[in-house]
Amino acid sequence: MRFTFVTLFKQLLEGYFEDSILKRAAEKGLLTFDYLNPRDFTKDKHKKVDDTIAGGGAGMVMMAQPIYDALASLKNESPDVHIIFTTPVGKPFRQSDAKRLAKQKSHIAFVSGRYEGIDERVIEIFADECFSIGDYILTGGELPSLVMTDAISRIVPGVLGNADSLEAESFESLLLEAPSFTRPKTFHNLSIPSELLKGNHSKINALKKMMALSKTKYFRPERYLKFTQRESDEKSIY
Amino acid sequence: MRFTFVTLFKQLLEGYFEDSILKRAAEKGLLTFDYLNPRDFTKDKHKKVDDTIAGGGAGMVMMAQPIYDALASLKNESPDVHIIFTTPVGKPFRQSDAKRLAKQKSHIAFVSGRYEGIDERVIEIFADECFSIGDYILTGGELPSLVMTDAISRIVPGVLGNADSLEAESFESLLLEAPSFTRPKTFHNLSIPSELLKGNHSKINALKKMMALSKTKYFRPERYLKFTQRESDEKSIY
Repeated sequence: MRFTFVTLFKQLLEGYFEDSILKRAAEKGLLTFDYLNPRDFTKDKHKKVDDTIAGGGAGMVMMAQPIYDALASLKNESPDVHIIFTTPVGKPFRQSDAKRLAKQKSHIAFVSGRYEGIDERVIEIFADECFSIGDYILTGGELPSLVMTDAISRIVPGVLGNADSLEAESFESLLLEAPSFTRPKTFHNLSIPSELLKGNHSKINALKKMMALSKTKYFRPERYLKFTQRESDEKSIY
Repeated sequence: MRFTFVTLFKQLLEGYFEDSILKRAAEKGLLTFDYLNPRDFTKDKHKKVDDTIAGGGAGMVMMAQPIYDALASLKNESPDVHIIFTTPVGKPFRQSDAKRLAKQKSHIAFVSGRYEGIDERVIEIFADECFSIGDYILTGGELPSLVMTDAISRIVPGVLGNADSLEAESFESLLLEAPSFTRPKTFHNLSIPSELLKGNHSKINALKKMMALSKTKYFRPERYLKFTQRESDEKSIY
């Protein structure tokens, strides 16, 4: 799977691919990463890529032309590229999007805005999708591009060493994951819940579900509510 | 403001501070970044930091002891450090959290899990807060640590060049931001909405609000609904 990053600051991204899981996947040829800098496409003699906001207001907006030309050259070279703009004004990116994109796309380009955003017209022309990764404001779209790349990449077959660890994770269902424990049995006076050590798998699963319910109820009451409603709907069928 | 990253993979993070806004803020002395590797604190002779999951299951869990000792040494050196664990099993991180932390804390440590997570007992002992940045699964907690650092840092006074650009952004209110435009007036047959160019500020503000409402309704119907309910509640007081 190929990822292209359209950004003014590729130095912010490159380091993330220099160790751990994504580095190994790139070495195996499962993933490739490349970069396009809108500044290389500007027709302005001072290499300018931004200008003042139409209608007034503080800050600068990224001009349409450099990004347009960068994306046109990319589309020309790779017609099937799927173009995603990272912006707080987009739909929330979720695990189901990561799964869909990992399955259906072979080349994704992420366009990172900076400053007060990107001239809307280039978004209108080129965006296949616009995603927000959460309800907070960042200095640019580079981290959202990395977050989506990471979430999509780990689902690409062969990227994670152990395929089993894709199962039973938070957001694959409505419930968050149960807490995990490992040796030693007692650490600073805190013991691993004893059921986990007795090998009775139905009891272990019941305990894990109870812990997952309690974490979900505490941290994500809206997901807990949906889960309990669904369970009671399922029961009422019989 | 000081940020400490407790991670096995500091190479994944360092590059993000080597350009642009956060680099400049670090050069001005407004922000400092440092790292602690749990592997430097392991008492295992093979430098192991993970072990199998109690109760069974695929994958490995980060052991409590190396993280415990890393955090104990940090607390000893900086007793007021605010410790945040990055985990999908946490409360959703929002702009209001970024604001609160930027205002109230001078030293934050982010603990990044890898593999199937961190032994729950060290979370229980040390976590001041547990945050999730969104409903998707990542290969580790490093990107969430960067996302929160970026969101918090840009609010620290002096970090953004233009203080005005902190105003009127998405998530500061229920509405997403209106789209932005800059020169030229017409680009590939698409024109800037003409009201924006006429200098009548009450008409510009009305148009921006209308565009913000329409983006919010399309991308975030639940926020749109809350906004319209609040507006109608406010009207019904009179």
